[in-house]
Amino acid sequence: MNQKGFFTLYERERKKVEKILVKAFKDRKPDSLYKPVNYIVSSGGKRLRPLLVLLSAKAVGGNFRDVYNASVAVELLHNFTLVHDDIMDNADKRRGLLTLHKKYDDSTAILAGDSLLAVAYEYLLKDCDGKTKEVIAAFTKGLIEVCEGQSLDKDFETRNNVSKDEYKLMIMKKTAAMSEMCCTIGALLGGGSTKEIKAVSLFGKNIGIAFQIQDDLLDISGNEKEFGKKVGGDLIEGKKTFLFIEALSKAKGNDKKRLVNVMKNNGIRPGQVNIYKNIYERLGVIDDAKTEIKLYTNRALRSLKSLKEDGDRKIFSWLADSLIKRIK
Amino acid sequence: MNQKGFFTLYERERKKVEKILVKAFKDRKPDSLYKPVNYIVSSGGKRLRPLLVLLSAKAVGGNFRDVYNASVAVELLHNFTLVHDDIMDNADKRRGLLTLHKKYDDSTAILAGDSLLAVAYEYLLKDCDGKTKEVIAAFTKGLIEVCEGQSLDKDFETRNNVSKDEYKLMIMKKTAAMSEMCCTIGALLGGGSTKEIKAVSLFGKNIGIAFQIQDDLLDISGNEKEFGKKVGGDLIEGKKTFLFIEALSKAKGNDKKRLVNVMKNNGIRPGQVNIYKNIYERLGVIDDAKTEIKLYTNRALRSLKSLKEDGDRKIFSWLADSLIKRIK
Repeated sequence: MNQKGFFTLYERERKKVEKILVKAFKDRKPDSLYKPVNYIVSSGGKRLRPLLVLLSAKAVGGNFRDVYNASVAVELLHNFTLVHDDIMDNADKRRGLLTLHKKYDDSTAILAGDSLLAVAYEYLLKDCDGKTKEVIAAFTKGLIEVCEGQSLDKDFETRNNVSKDEYKLMIMKKTAAMSEMCCTIGALLGGGSTKEIKAVSLFGKNIGIAFQIQDDLLDISGNEKEFGKKVGGDLIEGKKTFLFIEALSKAKGNDKKRLVNVMKNNGIRPGQVNIYKNIYERLGVIDDAKTEIKLYTNRALRSLKSLKEDGDRKIFSWLADSLIKRIK
Repeated sequence: MNQKGFFTLYERERKKVEKILVKAFKDRKPDSLYKPVNYIVSSGGKRLRPLLVLLSAKAVGGNFRDVYNASVAVELLHNFTLVHDDIMDNADKRRGLLTLHKKYDDSTAILAGDSLLAVAYEYLLKDCDGKTKEVIAAFTKGLIEVCEGQSLDKDFETRNNVSKDEYKLMIMKKTAAMSEMCCTIGALLGGGSTKEIKAVSLFGKNIGIAFQIQDDLLDISGNEKEFGKKVGGDLIEGKKTFLFIEALSKAKGNDKKRLVNVMKNNGIRPGQVNIYKNIYERLGVIDDAKTEIKLYTNRALRSLKSLKEDGDRKIFSWLADSLIKRIK
């Protein structure tokens, strides 16, 4: 298989996951609960977490067909976090559509999120035979860390002294714990050895960190048309991203003042984005982010060295490569 | 053991559960997440659901010590529903204290609720050995039903034609599914036979229905001092309780008009509570509620006939009896 083959596989598997996802809520009542749930579940998304489960199972000698329900489970968990986070962030749009709490109301969104999580466990159980305890434990650990990560992220909003280490702990919990968990579950259900499970999980953790820093980078360096969102949105909202924290620690004089102002004013005006992009470039934090992304991606790939098959390593390399080269 | 012995046992076990509950969040970080979680967990409560788990395990020949973590899990699940429901209902007080979202804010409460649920699964897993799949499945089924029940309950707020059957479906899901689940899990972990598990689960389900109708009844017939809440609160909030729905279906003429007005105005003034209490008495719905409570309590106790030990049946009878005779 080549890179094109990898994309064909991704598209094929994404559609299969999509089908199970939509079917998951088809016959449930009441509509007042499951129509909103369906709204978010059918709104698309990259479905990267299911892909991690599938590839991890395969990489340790398992089959895709044994982990489709688990794949759906991690996507449901992901959607649960999106729905609840969007309420907390008071976000208006998600995947180009109104967020769930804007389309309906906060109560409906809270409850829809809760249901997504509940049904996630239901689907996870379908694929669990023989490994239920380990799989549920890994999933639950991921869930607990996601909550802790979101809480740290919320804390950062009102703090002006967030260090790079604190930022990394936050994305470790909010993003990387989830991709790690996807890989752990895939490898567990794929029948991997302890060593293989550890290798694949480490891949998931490190690729998750790279993914999040890439996300922070795209916000400022993305092409607006391809990116699909306003460039500089994180600055406008005053979010403490990797680039912002790095810039703040490096800046002096006028640049420092301007960065402190972002925190004072809880963000900047859209017209100011370019000023800050220039500061970022001047301070070299765009390159710093790229270096960091490469570091964690390499770490991720290195952890796979113990896998038997070259082909499996290759498929993870393509995945890592696609994530780094992604434009949105 | 006599009735007094039963209360001693309840108090003793409640304190043990309390201890584990409080310890569950002692060493977790960040504080921004776990201080609010601790606030609700340490705010007391009857801890009836843990008691159901404990007694169910014992009733099928198991030991209390094998199900303490599971008991804590169901209490955490219960607290999760309280925290999220209180946001949806915009409730101010809970157990005599400010509700979590009033003490902090909605975002904190959403996330605290999510964490309570996550840690509930963590604790459930601790007691699961050998039965993980069945136990997690029962717990998850209960969780899904609780969400559906809450959604139905919210629907009822804006509907003027809720039937008694719809009301029963709602409390079956919102209240009885949870007590059923507690008993199922206790009996599963206690090592009960299929027949025993079914018997104890049926007890849990029916006692849950009785409990909820009793709750509706207490709201209007309780002694304000002993009840600890404003008598008639459900009427003031315009809630569609068993008594209200029953009254609406029986009333004619002026009484009917007055009941319809409750819905039109989304509640009544505190000064009107006695007028409605009189209507309820005139229509006999207070007696209807009592009959219904007795019906479901008897059903609950009848389902226990297949249990081997007379002593176990007795302890459930005391529990049922205490629930019916409770004043708050």
